[in-house]
Amino acid sequence: MTNNDLLARRERLLGTGTALFYDDPVQIVRGEGVWLYDETGRRYLDMYNNVPCVGHAHPHVVEAMQRQAETLNVHSRYLHEGILDYAERLTALHADPISTAIFTCTGTEANEVAIQMARAATGNRGIVASDSAYHGNSTEVAKLSRIGSREARGLAPEPEYESFPFPEQYRSLDDSASEQELLNLYLDGVRKAIAELQSRGVALAAMLVCPILANEGIPNIPTGFMAQATEIVHQAGGLVICDEVQAGFGRTGSWWGYETSDFEPDIVSMGKPMGNGMPVAGVVAPLNLVNAFRQKVRYFNTFAASPLQAAVGMAVIDVIEQEDLVQNAADIGAYMRDELRGMQEFCEPLAEVRGQGLFVGLEWVSDRHAKTADPQGADLIVNRLKEKGFLLSRAGILGNVVKIRPPLPFHREHADLFLSAFEETIRETDPSSP
Amino acid sequence: MTNNDLLARRERLLGTGTALFYDDPVQIVRGEGVWLYDETGRRYLDMYNNVPCVGHAHPHVVEAMQRQAETLNVHSRYLHEGILDYAERLTALHADPISTAIFTCTGTEANEVAIQMARAATGNRGIVASDSAYHGNSTEVAKLSRIGSREARGLAPEPEYESFPFPEQYRSLDDSASEQELLNLYLDGVRKAIAELQSRGVALAAMLVCPILANEGIPNIPTGFMAQATEIVHQAGGLVICDEVQAGFGRTGSWWGYETSDFEPDIVSMGKPMGNGMPVAGVVAPLNLVNAFRQKVRYFNTFAASPLQAAVGMAVIDVIEQEDLVQNAADIGAYMRDELRGMQEFCEPLAEVRGQGLFVGLEWVSDRHAKTADPQGADLIVNRLKEKGFLLSRAGILGNVVKIRPPLPFHREHADLFLSAFEETIRETDPSSP
Repeated sequence: MTNNDLLARRERLLGTGTALFYDDPVQIVRGEGVWLYDETGRRYLDMYNNVPCVGHAHPHVVEAMQRQAETLNVHSRYLHEGILDYAERLTALHADPISTAIFTCTGTEANEVAIQMARAATGNRGIVASDSAYHGNSTEVAKLSRIGSREARGLAPEPEYESFPFPEQYRSLDDSASEQELLNLYLDGVRKAIAELQSRGVALAAMLVCPILANEGIPNIPTGFMAQATEIVHQAGGLVICDEVQAGFGRTGSWWGYETSDFEPDIVSMGKPMGNGMPVAGVVAPLNLVNAFRQKVRYFNTFAASPLQAAVGMAVIDVIEQEDLVQNAADIGAYMRDELRGMQEFCEPLAEVRGQGLFVGLEWVSDRHAKTADPQGADLIVNRLKEKGFLLSRAGILGNVVKIRPPLPFHREHADLFLSAFEETIRETDPSSP
Repeated sequence: MTNNDLLARRERLLGTGTALFYDDPVQIVRGEGVWLYDETGRRYLDMYNNVPCVGHAHPHVVEAMQRQAETLNVHSRYLHEGILDYAERLTALHADPISTAIFTCTGTEANEVAIQMARAATGNRGIVASDSAYHGNSTEVAKLSRIGSREARGLAPEPEYESFPFPEQYRSLDDSASEQELLNLYLDGVRKAIAELQSRGVALAAMLVCPILANEGIPNIPTGFMAQATEIVHQAGGLVICDEVQAGFGRTGSWWGYETSDFEPDIVSMGKPMGNGMPVAGVVAPLNLVNAFRQKVRYFNTFAASPLQAAVGMAVIDVIEQEDLVQNAADIGAYMRDELRGMQEFCEPLAEVRGQGLFVGLEWVSDRHAKTADPQGADLIVNRLKEKGFLLSRAGILGNVVKIRPPLPFHREHADLFLSAFEETIRETDPSSP
């Protein structure tokens, strides 16, 4: 079926304006490792998908899924060893005293549980978050979406939610400030958000934060922000929920984004890469926090904590360990950033190259001095690269950050293919470049 | 590993008080068709699980899952024919003008979308529901849980939610009323709930209802209730959301519970049986309602509307059609109810046998005249039958309804095995029975 036929059917069957990538969308029919194939057999290098974290259609994961599906897949109100083995292995990958898991099917559901857990454990209701975050699509979790622009979008304030300016060094609160001064400015933002909640009688339950601020545009965060914000939150009686839905499972070159950003959260939510595409997500926390939640909320999730989730989740951890993918993310990510920084010399719009591990962000501007965000320019790059066989996307609150986030078995040879195509593209799109 | 070891690990790894069936829980390691097997190889007839609707580990479903998993599983921002084929086939199973689907991973997420859709389409916020319902575990959807007992449970009222007494004929609002009078009493309840919302300035967005009131205890609903309540809701400017998470996919002996209960909802949410255990759920509605939602809510669900969900969902529909499971549910359900009604003569606690298709409820009482609910008695039956190799559970707001809800390929021979074990059990537990 042609793309035009599919587009027309899609509008009719899934609704008008369903999210779709690229000016000229691509039909994908097969995936293998870091490669995706369209209906004509043309291959694309996948530079976007973090969900199939160990690579598309990884045979070890497919086999684990099949073996379990043909054996047993049922809810968790019977005893089953597999789900306990998985909970044990997953919590062991986290820092003490994290010991206990609650499984869900999506990252949204994991953040729902995390918020309900923090509220149950503290007895408080208030949540603070970055002003430009996204943590999920349920009615409650969506209250955290881009809180900073709620008013501009005609939305009423949410009395139990308050935001702070997300910490960044590039387009910062004060360009003349040192990193230490900037850190203090941003920490004041957290204090103010908590005080704002308290001033309307809402005590703090939690700060909910992505450890690498992925949706905000993966900025360079002033050193020490996460650890010191955690102290502030604890002093106010709240807990820190770390949303590892994007950062977790080796993406940043550490197992968890909170290791990369150097702090210790109380509750961790996880999702996307956890099942390599199978819906698996969840929350880990110390036993006492989980018990506070279990006691207050009679939580049950039909499809979650199933033998199938456990088998697939285990297989994903197997592959990450066996193929040394955490180290690979650190190495190849650093290599790509180095090479891309070299291109800043002759690529005026490429104002900043940043990120952690295999999550790279390219700040795209029309004027480096004025730091004018250029989402159209970033979009042009993304679409041109797609024509050349490289699938990327954009990130950031201004939509001007080119987002590079391939499956983890992305090696030096793949990076080199991309780097030459990228260099070719910037030379084509910027006539001023030599 | 012994059950005691598993129980101790479970408390530590999943938290204290995680939901578990039976006084002496059962470890399940394998499933096939309507049979489940424990770690010793002992088999149990599954009389509970509606999720593996076409039977545990059905080879056609397992094969479809494997084939798709080894080919491609990716999000929906690329074009893919499989997900459109599935949306087309699924919506075609529904009454006109339902034409369009939004996929999610769980029933909770489906009800989140349904509520957000009704609110987007009507511009109103108010939701009415049965006083004893359960529709999911997110913060917003959980506001619908047993609204009638919120006050007794020390919960504050939710200004956007109001409930009506669920319509039942057994323990009804007025035992001296005729069915027609009872119908009017219950319809007045719906009118009152809507008026209650309006009196506090909240206009009606939707009534959200399970077409067979499964969690309420699958009562005999006065004929015409759902259709006439739908009229009342429409007149008040609201939409009707039918929650088919439990009733759908042939369970009631029709494809949908709303066919069995004879009304036409505006929005339908689905879940549990949809992927035979793979997390697949979703909402179907007319295009204009989906578009109203898409326009207001930038909804995206990472794991949903995936080629894997589509392949598995398709395979489930294949099997339901090929094995004629809808008709089987109607036939075997009717046969079981007839036989069970015959046992009422010598089983005093068995006050009522009811249900639709392969969803059977047995009202268990300690005194038929006073209609005194006997949850302990029902629990004893359930636990005794488990010892004999039959897995059942309980339902109903009073916890006294024995719940029989096997996978759909449950045939005459399985029904007969159960019926003799059930008769044996009631004779053992009730010394007065001859």
